Amino acid sequence: MDNMKQNITYSRIEAPALTVVQGFAAAGVHCGLKRSSRDLALLYSEKPASAAGVFTQNRVQAAPVQLCRARIGNPIRALVVNSGNANACTGAKGMENAQEMAALAAAALGIDPGEVLVCSTGVIGQQLPIDRIQAGIREAAAALSSSYQSGQDAAAAILTTDTVTKQAAYRGSLPEGSFHLAGMAKGAGMICPNMATMLAFIATDVQIARPLLQQLFQEAVDRSFNLITIDGDTSTNDTALVLANGAAGVEITPGSPGLDLFAGLLNRVCRDLARQIVSDGEGITKVIELTVRGAADEAAARVLARTVLNSPLVKTAFYGEDANWGRIMAALGYAGVPFDPEQVDIFIGPVQVASRGGAVPFREEEAKAVLQQREIAVTVDLNAGSAAVTAWGTDLTHEYVTINSHYRS
Amino acid sequence: MDNMKQNITYSRIEAPALTVVQGFAAAGVHCGLKRSSRDLALLYSEKPASAAGVFTQNRVQAAPVQLCRARIGNPIRALVVNSGNANACTGAKGMENAQEMAALAAAALGIDPGEVLVCSTGVIGQQLPIDRIQAGIREAAAALSSSYQSGQDAAAAILTTDTVTKQAAYRGSLPEGSFHLAGMAKGAGMICPNMATMLAFIATDVQIARPLLQQLFQEAVDRSFNLITIDGDTSTNDTALVLANGAAGVEITPGSPGLDLFAGLLNRVCRDLARQIVSDGEGITKVIELTVRGAADEAAARVLARTVLNSPLVKTAFYGEDANWGRIMAALGYAGVPFDPEQVDIFIGPVQVASRGGAVPFREEEAKAVLQQREIAVTVDLNAGSAAVTAWGTDLTHEYVTINSHYRS
Repeated sequence: MDNMKQNITYSRIEAPALTVVQGFAAAGVHCGLKRSSRDLALLYSEKPASAAGVFTQNRVQAAPVQLCRARIGNPIRALVVNSGNANACTGAKGMENAQEMAALAAAALGIDPGEVLVCSTGVIGQQLPIDRIQAGIREAAAALSSSYQSGQDAAAAILTTDTVTKQAAYRGSLPEGSFHLAGMAKGAGMICPNMATMLAFIATDVQIARPLLQQLFQEAVDRSFNLITIDGDTSTNDTALVLANGAAGVEITPGSPGLDLFAGLLNRVCRDLARQIVSDGEGITKVIELTVRGAADEAAARVLARTVLNSPLVKTAFYGEDANWGRIMAALGYAGVPFDPEQVDIFIGPVQVASRGGAVPFREEEAKAVLQQREIAVTVDLNAGSAAVTAWGTDLTHEYVTINSHYRS
Repeated sequence: MDNMKQNITYSRIEAPALTVVQGFAAAGVHCGLKRSSRDLALLYSEKPASAAGVFTQNRVQAAPVQLCRARIGNPIRALVVNSGNANACTGAKGMENAQEMAALAAAALGIDPGEVLVCSTGVIGQQLPIDRIQAGIREAAAALSSSYQSGQDAAAAILTTDTVTKQAAYRGSLPEGSFHLAGMAKGAGMICPNMATMLAFIATDVQIARPLLQQLFQEAVDRSFNLITIDGDTSTNDTALVLANGAAGVEITPGSPGLDLFAGLLNRVCRDLARQIVSDGEGITKVIELTVRGAADEAAARVLARTVLNSPLVKTAFYGEDANWGRIMAALGYAGVPFDPEQVDIFIGPVQVASRGGAVPFREEEAKAVLQQREIAVTVDLNAGSAAVTAWGTDLTHEYVTINSHYRS
């Protein structure tokens, strides 16, 4: 990405929206699942799109997740998303409702129900009020447009406790033409983002076969959303989808010159959205960017990074702006991954706080100056190899407890 | 245990202390590791004792844990414990200090250093001030007694953020005589008890060979302390020890009539202490007793129970007195254990809140009445077998965040 050939370039779109992608229209409306804010989003592609998806590993899978898994191999024309009700733990009736949502969207758009994907997020264990959904889908279908504002409305309609929309968009240029990638996401509670629903939807106007798209998307998700989530430690509804409709007239194949650019921009969109999710975590005051380096392999570094970032004791220490490297050592130790504790160096920003697994003299005020920032870089060097991973987490705050003890999600 | 033969009985000792066990003396003093409270405990056995232990699975193991592992097979005469400093992440110097603690205790008691076990708890990454330890050991050796008060002093000296001592004691009667079992413990932070140090020390005056003692103790720990702890998710210092000195003149062997009574009382002491640890969790307002029943096997039930009790969203829901069974379902789902979500029933106290994985009508005020209690019984029935496990956890509160963002442990 950093050494682009002269005629292969890209740019970040400063006013991102799904609707910057050619051939996509969007809408976001209020249908009454939430008290007053938008709660139903619709995304429509003029052409059938290749779709790829990454879904929750939770054994309890919401009805819309099951529907998406079954349909992801189809050519896709539309996606309908509601917030305020997860349609999870709702049994056979829940699956009927998810299918009904797709059928209602298909009818409103004049397409086949098999061309529609469905996502839901919100309270678990309550049946969807399908009459409200029906009214919302009709209204959204009527409101569909490719305007910037429609993109904003859709991005707002998928939120729950989020305080801001999460969006990112890029334009890529190849000798044969330019293309776009844009995404919107919904964040989550911040002890483990996985435990509240995370949704991410990406649209692109390249033409790409489904198997290649799935492979590239899985890699991008592993380096972004899966670095703010514990493996297998996911909600009932977590879903990340990408739709590629080919409207730009640019084709990406395993041998095409644009492959690296497309894969790179897909990574960027996912990482941008992942960071926005962390940054809007429930009640947080700090974003921790943790790099585990010097690892024997990337998989081990990944597990260590996430274990540290999920430790309540580490998280409360950052909240208290305490350079408590002992809690980081303890969390590394129970990650279940082999490493030599007596080789570990730890840095808070540029300040080394532990050397070879033990204390090292450092100036508390220098560490404090780093810890007082909102964004804190922490580095753990295992001194055992050349693999490295960067992951993102947050502190654990009084406000988190307040939010989650009073919101039935 | 419940159908005792006429001449095999037991009783609970209402004023528990390690010193109720014959042939043991104890002391607890202040040597300056903590500001003002007792911080050094000494336990001494008149006769060499068989010892058994269960230690942290953390890859980062404090020096005293390494020392205990190496010496647990020896006949043991004494145990020295300090609070205020964990002697963890302290390298070669830390191991020297642990050995020096044992040597100092041995010298003060006129025994061999190999007959002394050592435990530490407190701040990670700082070297022990060995001069203070030395003074403390001398003072403790001089203060050793088998009085009730000395037992209390020792139980107080091992605490860190605990608000009360944790003790339990039983007397068993067999045709050939009576014997005692008593224990003291130190609790822990309450998101995962494992992440702050848990220490438990049990003394008994039966005679029992080390292999049998180790087997019975491992079983007792699995049904008590390990049901308030995630496997492999432990602190650098967690240690549970039992010492059996034979002073009662009662021998326990694989074929002896007293075996079941002894094993049962060892279980009881461990469960009593485990419950006291949970009940004194940092900043808690609720104790959750979770039973997972109808499981295909006990191992699966164990993992499911602990995953639910460690879910921050479940814990905050209990803090908010919210009958949020959806969060319980979601936590079950990511436990990594196979089960059929559509067979799960959930009860809060006697109130069924979910049936076959879905919502069931219930009176919110009845659930609320249960949730307003300090102790809340929750039952998850998997309807898939006959195995059951009961585990204990707590809520997650504002006070927990306050304590752990301001205490460097």
